[in-house]
Amino acid sequence: MNQGKVITAAISRVTNGSIQTREDLLAVEEPLEIRLGFGPADHRVQKSILITMRTPGNDFELVAGFLYNENIIQKPDDIQNLQHCKDAGRHSNSENIVRVELSPEIKVNLKQMERHFYTTSSCGVCGKASIDAVQVANCPALPTDAPTVPIPVIHNLIVQLQKKQTAFRHTGGLHAAALFDCDGNLQIIREDVGRHNALDKLIGTAVYKKMIPLSDGIVLVSGRASFELVQKTLRAGAPMMVAVGAPSSLAVDLAQTFGLTLIGFLRDARFNIYAGKERIEC
Amino acid sequence: MNQGKVITAAISRVTNGSIQTREDLLAVEEPLEIRLGFGPADHRVQKSILITMRTPGNDFELVAGFLYNENIIQKPDDIQNLQHCKDAGRHSNSENIVRVELSPEIKVNLKQMERHFYTTSSCGVCGKASIDAVQVANCPALPTDAPTVPIPVIHNLIVQLQKKQTAFRHTGGLHAAALFDCDGNLQIIREDVGRHNALDKLIGTAVYKKMIPLSDGIVLVSGRASFELVQKTLRAGAPMMVAVGAPSSLAVDLAQTFGLTLIGFLRDARFNIYAGKERIEC
Repeated sequence: MNQGKVITAAISRVTNGSIQTREDLLAVEEPLEIRLGFGPADHRVQKSILITMRTPGNDFELVAGFLYNENIIQKPDDIQNLQHCKDAGRHSNSENIVRVELSPEIKVNLKQMERHFYTTSSCGVCGKASIDAVQVANCPALPTDAPTVPIPVIHNLIVQLQKKQTAFRHTGGLHAAALFDCDGNLQIIREDVGRHNALDKLIGTAVYKKMIPLSDGIVLVSGRASFELVQKTLRAGAPMMVAVGAPSSLAVDLAQTFGLTLIGFLRDARFNIYAGKERIEC
Repeated sequence: MNQGKVITAAISRVTNGSIQTREDLLAVEEPLEIRLGFGPADHRVQKSILITMRTPGNDFELVAGFLYNENIIQKPDDIQNLQHCKDAGRHSNSENIVRVELSPEIKVNLKQMERHFYTTSSCGVCGKASIDAVQVANCPALPTDAPTVPIPVIHNLIVQLQKKQTAFRHTGGLHAAALFDCDGNLQIIREDVGRHNALDKLIGTAVYKKMIPLSDGIVLVSGRASFELVQKTLRAGAPMMVAVGAPSSLAVDLAQTFGLTLIGFLRDARFNIYAGKERIEC
């Protein structure tokens, strides 16, 4: 199948103040680890070179494209074998690990490879392991007494975001992350070409202002809600995250596991609740 | 300044078949390297822990937020000092390196840190260095005789994308990357929650089909055009990239340097040309 994998989920849709439960489709997000085997037959080296959050499907093409783009392979024959890993261990999903064997004559410069790779935050190899990793990653417990938030306050967040997000209006090319209190008052807003960076800037500002944990905070992101953005919100101790775009399957799993209220597709007159509905005041 | 940095650029706007040159605003994208100093006073360790493409501004908050989210710091006092790096070297921009000194009592587990970081493709520390890195990264030369493409063919790309991108239509949560020939015939389409992954899947498929270099190919991406997506397109040898969203400043620089035709904001009736206008047939 060439199209991305989707799953169904029960959500609450809020339209003009009324809530309806219905089924919705979510894009599947799961981690993929690439393990590389290379070197001459008598000196094979194995190394885990990448963990990326991806939608399952076309995994081998993803791996081949990644290796080509990183200048590790030049042609299909440079790959001797590709398979989903069988020895993935207790907590891992073998569909989420691909083992690649390169031809013996392919030279891989590990030092250069490390220097040429970005690093961004991560936490595991299968959805379950990822969620376990968050549990031990020193997240403040979410407040059990976080105030409920009336529906009109949620709708008003997008109005405030649009007013403030001046650079986006002019370029169409920046993500924003904003922090509101539970009455909907804007506290901090930050912009960046990278959505992770926008949220890191926001949370860094909150660290400096000694506002962590954000016990009555609402985190608003201008794009989609991925696993990693939910993870950052939990780490900052905020009980509610609102996305203008769609959440991924793993973002919803994580929010449900930790009791975070997760809202997506925020528009002027409607939004969807994916987890933690009890904090929305009808 | 809380808002993201922007710069002006001369672009060509195509509206209903007519081309006008005008000024436009671009979101600035530049790399940031974080160098960490930690350990007791008599055994300080220095390590470069992250290179991320970001919009300059609020760099110290970005660094503090990243370190907090990675569970390296817990409070502002855990950071002793933060400064832009002065010894950045000939090719680097000192504004693009932040040096952090942690308090001596903060323990950093390098092994765990490495295990807990994602890696994604990268290529340098300042825009200039990044572009130099691409020049040596084994990109096929773009064809000097690539066919020109009529304006209606460009407009039709979005129509075809919308027809095919079924999972996005249902979830709103997937990026797509599509390959067309210069007559606008769809060759490959791939979807993923990550836009880099969608393009990696597309290029991996092209590698397997022995279609590389994509000398008469048009690469279409459903979101914004970042530096890294342009880099992948160049590495695949395609002379034209079209984005439904906005390009970043560094994406435009890279396209101009390599003679790639870069189009953004593709709509039914208009689009912007940021580089390589000569391949568009009026």
